[in-house]
Amino acid sequence: MKPSIPKGTRDFGPVEMAKRNYIFNTIRQVYARHGYTQIETPAMENLSTLMGKYGEEGDRLLFKILNSGDFLAKISEEELAERNPLHLAARFCEKGLRYDLTVPFARYVVQHREELQMPFKRYQIQPVWRADRPQKGRYREFYQCDADVVGSDSLLNEVELVEIMQEVFSSFGIRVCIKINNRKILTGIAEVIGASDKIVDITVAIDKLDKIGLDGVNEELRSGGLDETAIEKLQPIIKLSGTNAEKMQTMRQVLATSDTGLKGVEEVEFVLRTLSAEEQENVEFDLTLARGLNYYTGCIFEVKALDVQIGSITGGGRYDNLTGIFGMPGLSGVGISFGADRIYDVLNQLDLYPKDAVQGVRLLFINFGEREAAHCLRLARMVRAAGISVEVYPDAAKMKKQMSYANARQIPFVALVGEQEMADGTVSLKNMESGEQRSLAIDELIGALGK
Amino acid sequence: MKPSIPKGTRDFGPVEMAKRNYIFNTIRQVYARHGYTQIETPAMENLSTLMGKYGEEGDRLLFKILNSGDFLAKISEEELAERNPLHLAARFCEKGLRYDLTVPFARYVVQHREELQMPFKRYQIQPVWRADRPQKGRYREFYQCDADVVGSDSLLNEVELVEIMQEVFSSFGIRVCIKINNRKILTGIAEVIGASDKIVDITVAIDKLDKIGLDGVNEELRSGGLDETAIEKLQPIIKLSGTNAEKMQTMRQVLATSDTGLKGVEEVEFVLRTLSAEEQENVEFDLTLARGLNYYTGCIFEVKALDVQIGSITGGGRYDNLTGIFGMPGLSGVGISFGADRIYDVLNQLDLYPKDAVQGVRLLFINFGEREAAHCLRLARMVRAAGISVEVYPDAAKMKKQMSYANARQIPFVALVGEQEMADGTVSLKNMESGEQRSLAIDELIGALGK
Repeated sequence: MKPSIPKGTRDFGPVEMAKRNYIFNTIRQVYARHGYTQIETPAMENLSTLMGKYGEEGDRLLFKILNSGDFLAKISEEELAERNPLHLAARFCEKGLRYDLTVPFARYVVQHREELQMPFKRYQIQPVWRADRPQKGRYREFYQCDADVVGSDSLLNEVELVEIMQEVFSSFGIRVCIKINNRKILTGIAEVIGASDKIVDITVAIDKLDKIGLDGVNEELRSGGLDETAIEKLQPIIKLSGTNAEKMQTMRQVLATSDTGLKGVEEVEFVLRTLSAEEQENVEFDLTLARGLNYYTGCIFEVKALDVQIGSITGGGRYDNLTGIFGMPGLSGVGISFGADRIYDVLNQLDLYPKDAVQGVRLLFINFGEREAAHCLRLARMVRAAGISVEVYPDAAKMKKQMSYANARQIPFVALVGEQEMADGTVSLKNMESGEQRSLAIDELIGALGK
Repeated sequence: MKPSIPKGTRDFGPVEMAKRNYIFNTIRQVYARHGYTQIETPAMENLSTLMGKYGEEGDRLLFKILNSGDFLAKISEEELAERNPLHLAARFCEKGLRYDLTVPFARYVVQHREELQMPFKRYQIQPVWRADRPQKGRYREFYQCDADVVGSDSLLNEVELVEIMQEVFSSFGIRVCIKINNRKILTGIAEVIGASDKIVDITVAIDKLDKIGLDGVNEELRSGGLDETAIEKLQPIIKLSGTNAEKMQTMRQVLATSDTGLKGVEEVEFVLRTLSAEEQENVEFDLTLARGLNYYTGCIFEVKALDVQIGSITGGGRYDNLTGIFGMPGLSGVGISFGADRIYDVLNQLDLYPKDAVQGVRLLFINFGEREAAHCLRLARMVRAAGISVEVYPDAAKMKKQMSYANARQIPFVALVGEQEMADGTVSLKNMESGEQRSLAIDELIGALGK
């Protein structure tokens, strides 16, 4: 029977890894250029750090690690007999696998508070684990790529994060729309119409305008329990359109009686006007953007790819009190998270991987026997010293086998160095794509391999 | 109470991460230049994949993951009442954390055999987990950096791996001795003296020559149960010295009656003579090298740092039948593994990290207020476009606070752009090390920041 891996997990082979490295390195470089520094936290955290941070559902989806040694030693007969899985899991397990990067980051900040310089800008690219039911595009192990800055309320951080998103997707060549909203605007709307518990229903209904039309939206609001006065007040918002400036102008009027709402408008306006003109072009105020309403407190971001039908490929926002859960109140922050798996799919669908990012070995020396191979090893050292990836086929196998190895690995050049070439001090270089073969002096070899 | 992390695990902060990335990237680059391609496997493997592969001790040290949902559902009253931790752990848990990279690699090769091109050269840099008792230098989570080639018996693979070790440590600037031995030589010695069960005792005793002298070694062999004939035959080996060529000459004589032993000598001689003259200098045949005797079958390698007292920093060897445990017999391979944590310590002790590998942000713009900051953001974009890491301090905080932030983060340059500079189109650039401050035109800024 073939061995297998746990459901919801994946092996990444050479080609997938090259593509994933390209994604992570691109994101990493942009983060670093903006002064974000990398940290890593352990895969295992104490369950006391993780439990209660992701809601009841999250507690259930944590992977828990059985205590080593006699995990039953301190369990009483009664406890065992009760067979309560939640209780016994907590008694059998002290540690769990990281569920996201945010809680470990909060724990890190509190634990290392004395060493950290505020504002602290960190990025983190590591896998997380969730015992979710696996399905298409949802895995039990997946990478998150987060950047957060804590210890600064300045909106310049929001501006910088928008810039980072722009730079990353521009590096990838993915055309995007960066949507921005603000939690305070949503709170303001709820205040103005006197229905603070219905804000999610309202954004969901408004989001359907294109599909069901204005009457449809109003009907949905009505059946959701809004009275006619409220619905009347919402009309300018439902029909909100035009440039960002025009939208903000409308929002100012609608929210005129809500201090919180106006504060939200100001925050979004600050971010928009501080971006360069070019950057502003891809950013769109979207009132229906309502992600993470239970923890975001200011700006909210979401990135959509323009040329591929897929959910959001990046998101983030500002939160208050990241570290309050660990006894360090008053630390505000703002962060974003790139969805590496979806970006991978988008780059695949649009065929946007740069050739040199996914290319492996550039040259294979065919092995004609011990003496020739020893000679090729010396040539290979020379080529490698120029930073070019090169292999000598390890066995003096049949020519056909060696050539098909080169083909299967998509190696663009093959060098044939037999007795004649050794005597002449030359190399027969074959271009595997064109089939062209030519004889080169050894010192011409590196130049002929191109970049 | 401050939150903490499980014992034996570590957080890596920005400086540690920069250093670790330097180590991993250096190793990665060398692997890639030799045509090794990267794979990654899931942190969690089925316990059926892991159990029984590392001996009884290893089974105990595996971190096991509690089944999600009602892990007690299928457990009978009797099983529970017996309280057998090993049995119940196996019933409660289907998955465990990766214990090394070799078994997952073997599993990967078997699972993906149809897609793989043989010989398959892969490298893998990922954490592994062991429920060992933590102590200085021993962690419950640590990275391994392995390279293996499977599906080729050619000794050119051994040669290449020695070259890889040389290139990696030469990149690091760490002077090393690469020790080489061969399992067949040890088997041969055992054959010649008719004591195949004592080979480990013999190598341990010989290894003490410098400490306890020839008489001492002989005494130890005697008390270990070797007869006088055997001890007599071992004398040339115990006193083995001189160049590699001289040592191999002696070994040939001692092993004259053992085909296996002579095969081992030939293998080592092939590797030595196929290396370049320069590479041979750092390689030493060491008969007492006896690592991994229960699985290595051919050449064995170990790397020692010359200028730091520390255990082996890299090791490896040839093994037969990597994948036999998963029902795919006959696949031989050879591999090495760099000890990242020890290399980290060596580089620290010798202070060998290149400055630009650990340097973060190069320039900080002081924030004098909203208007100035917006101007600085534009300048920062320009500098960043040149590939230089730069930050704008997000808050218009007191000068002293911003300067001490720059100091604490060891940012080498600070730019002051106030009203005057904005009007003049200039930047006041302060070198934080020398204290020197000068006024520059904006287009001189990038050049002044150096590399």
